[in-house]
Order: sequence, then structure tokens, then C-alpha cells
Amino acid sequence: MNRPQQQTPRFAHRARVGTRWDDNDIYGHVNNAVYYQYFDSVINAYLIEQGGLDIHRGDTVGFVVRSECDYLAPVAYPGELEVGLGVERLGRSSVTYRLGLFDPRAPDPMAPCALGRMVHVFVRRSDSRPVPLPEGLRRALQALQFDSADTPLGQVTRI
Amino acid sequence: MNRPQQQTPRFAHRARVGTRWDDNDIYGHVNNAVYYQYFDSVINAYLIEQGGLDIHRGDTVGFVVRSECDYLAPVAYPGELEVGLGVERLGRSSVTYRLGLFDPRAPDPMAPCALGRMVHVFVRRSDSRPVPLPEGLRRALQALQFDSADTPLGQVTRI
Amino acid sequence: MNRPQQQTPRFAHRARVGTRWDDNDIYGHVNNAVYYQYFDSVINAYLIEQGGLDIHRGDTVGFVVRSECDYLAPVAYPGELEVGLGVERLGRSSVTYRLGLFDPRAPDPMAPCALGRMVHVFVRRSDSRPVPLPEGLRRALQALQFDSADTPLGQVTRI
Amino acid sequence: MNRPQQQTPRFAHRARVGTRWDDNDIYGHVNNAVYYQYFDSVINAYLIEQGGLDIHRGDTVGFVVRSECDYLAPVAYPGELEVGLGVERLGRSSVTYRLGLFDPRAPDPMAPCALGRMVHVFVRRSDSRPVPLPEGLRRALQALQFDSADTPLGQVTRI
Repeated sequence: MNRPQQQTPRFAHRARVGTRWDDNDIYGHVNNAVYYQYFDSVINAYLIEQGGLDIHRGDTVGFVVRSECDYLAPVAYPGELEVGLGVERLGRSSVTYRLGLFDPRAPDPMAPCALGRMVHVFVRRSDSRPVPLPEGLRRALQALQFDSADTPLGQVTRI
Repeated sequence: MNRPQQQTPRFAHRARVGTRWDDNDIYGHVNNAVYYQYFDSVINAYLIEQGGLDIHRGDTVGFVVRSECDYLAPVAYPGELEVGLGVERLGRSSVTYRLGLFDPRAPDPMAPCALGRMVHVFVRRSDSRPVPLPEGLRRALQALQFDSADTPLGQVTRI
Repeated sequence: MNRPQQQTPRFAHRARVGTRWDDNDIYGHVNNAVYYQYFDSVINAYLIEQGGLDIHRGDTVGFVVRSECDYLAPVAYPGELEVGLGVERLGRSSVTYRLGLFDPRAPDPMAPCALGRMVHVFVRRSDSRPVPLPEGLRRALQALQFDSADTPLGQVTRI
Repeated sequence: MNRPQQQTPRFAHRARVGTRWDDNDIYGHVNNAVYYQYFDSVINAYLIEQGGLDIHRGDTVGFVVRSECDYLAPVAYPGELEVGLGVERLGRSSVTYRLGLFDPRAPDPMAPCALGRMVHVFVRRSDSRPVPLPEGLRRALQALQFDSADTPLGQVTRI
């Protein structure tokens, strides 16, 4: 695969994720759907630990309404990968995350193996209606916003 | 969630997928990453059965280089869902699939619960270099192309 | 793999499960953990549809406290498999399920590809304390009990 | 759930595994099938790193022919868990692993949250016939064998 020309954003948050035996598909690489499991796990762990999200009993829950990913270079079990997380757009009830997947053992560990986006809309658990972002979450997400000079909005090359 | 205004394409191929207990996440709905498992499963089953793809020993394998999905209405285990599959763009080595997820038990079973796209690049298994689509695959994929009048290129509303 | 000598129980309930692209691992067969997803999905769908289990809001939930499986012959995506489900032991709060996995396209579709067991303990959702089986669930589970003449208790050959 | 009385073996190898968002099921705990993904991942990483197993191109591959697990206390995303791995029985072509799952944040982090077993039979990739364990794998597995005084063979209490 050729790597589309694009700028890698500087992600304010980075976290390790472990690969699993069954992440590899029959072709020997991590399956495309698993990347979203990595992204989702890093996003929600951040919201829980930094933003006070209570996934078990909280009134406010985050629903994913859009996701996308460009797969730039294959990755594989075993070993750990690194996910970079930033916030591209912060609305009243919604947030657009920008994500990068990095392989510490790759020839260039700074080059992303994948670049993704996910959009959360925060809703009331009881009736799934959008609600304003609780203050704790908003502060945690603001800390992840890209500098305007660094914002790579819409720069992913489509194939 | 409000449903973005968009046109649902007429999918040339439709197939059932079964939900699983563990598809539901802690919020009681099918997890966002699982939608790509449904899509991937319907795509590859079609390629195997109609296009002669040999996932075990074939020289040519399909790598996913991009995926995206708009989640329009939640779905949940138990029960079966339906996936609609069409081809939006057919290149020399690559194909862009358009996918819809439908819930036969929804109030309006014709309204998609999700609309996605996936892009396959076909490569030589031995060295991962792009190759022209084998003739059997090309014929099978041509049969899924949208009529030009019906092609909903890029019409998914972004949030 | 050689197939241990064992008697296949006559399962009172049978249901189809669809395989998925990512069920296949790097060796080209369905991954061992996925068998439990099949089993769990058939068990819970039966409890929901026949026993009135409400997985979203019910007071009583089933926790798996033990699972085991003998893998007798490999299976693979694509295609559908069949799960046989019976009840080996029905206690006050717990039930031991016996499960078989069958491949309709195998040379002998009556020979199980896997035989498993799972044990549910039913607990109160609020405090995870065991509770007596609700009457609807008990009746549904009684209907799956093996005839004493047919009960294959403990007959799985260990390797 | 009450915790069956049983002795926890002293595992020669221990490794961390990360939980994922979608490991939690609708009841808020890690799904029972996921425990086997943890076990499988730690086993194979050990075989690859210490025993020279080549999962991509090696002649010898390990097929799981039996698995079992007792779930003693629930675990949940987010956070890391620890897997203990030992070898209970080492045959000519097969190995029986003993596994424990530990939660570093539990009140008693030394008490296992789950105890499992998995059996690998090593076969030739080309024809799936059992083969003697390659020397590198055998040495790596011998290093994990329990002391006879410590071997907890068959001590898991069945419910």
C-alpha cells in the first residue's frame, strides 16, 4: 500500500494498547474493525479517568455516530501499539476525535499506521436525547484540542 | 439520535447477518466496531461465492485501506440484521463498496440503521503489491455497481 | 486431530449461527474463543425468546461461572453453523448447559465439530446475589433437559 | 458469586493484558469468551518470544483442542489485568496450560479472578497431523512446568 501524503497531527494524549492473538486475521494482520476497538478503548479510558465519565451508572453516555479510518501500513500481533488522541471539533453535545495508530517497532515509529476519526454525541441514558457536555468532560476534551496551526482538518487523502 | 437526510442507495446484493450476545456493549446496543465485522463478512462471502476469491490459498488478497460508517439508529442483539452491498467505484486494483445496515424489526425496515463505505485494494499475497483485479472478481463486482442515476456518491451528511 | 470417542447428546433446541470474516484466525479456522460467542448467543436468545429474560432491564441476570469446550474438528468462515443446546443439570439458581457445534457442510453433518458446557448462575442485578430461577426461565430450561437414558454426563474425553 | 475453595498455583510466567471498551458486555463485566482471548494472547506471545514459534510461516502450528475456565470474580474495562501461565502437562505433541487471571486493583490482587486450562496440540501446517514438539518450544514450555509439590492438577471445584 502506498501511504497517502498527509500531515500527522500532534496528539495531546497518547496511550498504549496491547494486541491480541485473534486481532490477526487470516492474512496475518490486525483486522480493520479492531482498529476501532483500540480507538474506542483509548477514548473512553480518557473520558473515565480525566473527565469523570461513569459508564456504569452515569446519566450521560456517549454514542458513536460516525467513524472512519485510513489504513496506511499493516500492524500485527504480538506486541503493543500506541494510540494518539486529539480533539478536532468540540460542539455543544458532540465531539470529533482525531486518532492515530503507531507501531513502536516500525522502521519509522513516528509515522502513523492508521489515521481515524470518531464522533461522539453525548445523550441522556434514559431517553437517548442529546445533552450539553457535562463540565468535567468538556474540560478534559478541551485539553486535547489541536492548536489552530496544527489542525489537520479534512486532510486525509481519500482513495 | 436524529437521522441525517440522505438518500438510501438501491443495493444490488443483500444478505442476512446474525447478531451475537457480545455485540451489545455496556449501553445495550451493538458496538460501533462490530458494524465493520458485518460489512466485511458480507463483502468477503460475496467475493468468495460469486467472484472465486480463495482466502486460504489464492495469490490475490484484498486489503482494506479505508472504512467509514454513519450510525443512524441503534441496533441490538438478539435477532438478525440485513446488509445491503453495492459498488460505488471500480478501479484497476481497488473497489469502493457502499453498505447499508437494515433492521427487519424496525418501524421502517427500509430505512438504514447505518450507512458505510469500505475500500479494498487487491494485492499479491507474496509481496503486498497492488495487482489488477482478477477477471472473476471484476465481473462479480461489476454486477454490484449502482446505476448512475442512483449513485449516491458522497451524499452522506457529515455531523 | 483425532476425534475422541463420545456420545453426542440429542439436543432439544437447535439454532443457526453465522460465521464472520474475523472469526477465522491466522491459521484459517474459527478461533477457539469464538465458539463461546456462538454458544452464549444461542443460550441467551433462547432465554429471551422462550423464558422471558430481559437483558436490558430485568431484575435477574445470568452470570457465566464456568465454561469448557472440546474442539473436535475445525470450522471456518464463510457459511452458517448449527448449535445444539440442552440442559444437563437444573439447580435452584444455576443451570448447566450442554452444547454442540455442527457444520451442515461437513462430510458427516451429524458429527459435532465441538462439544461444550456452560454454567449460568442467576443473580439479582442490583447486588449480584444468587436468586431462585424465575418461573418462566425454569419452565423454558426444563424443556431442554435430556432424557435420563440420553444424558451424557461427564462423558467428554479429556486429552 | 462465591469463590470455590481451591489452591492458586504459582505461575512461572506472568504478563499484562489490556482490557478494551467492548470487552464489557451489557451487564458491565468482561464477557466470558474474552478471557480465552487473554489466555491465548499470553500463551502465543510466550511461544513466539521464548520458543521461536513462527505463526506466519512456520511448519508447526498449535491447535487448541480443549479449553475451560472457572470465573471466580468479575473484572471490567478500563484498566490492565495480569495473566499467570504455567504448564501442567507436557506430552510428545501436546501441552496443557494452566492459567490464572488477576486484577491488580482488586482488594486481594493475589486471588485469581479466573482459573483456566487450555490444551494445544502441535501439528504440521500442511496436513494438520500431530508432530513432536520442536526443541525450542519444548525447552520454553519445560521452563513453565509446576513443581510437583505445587501442581494443582484437577483441583478446580466444579459447580
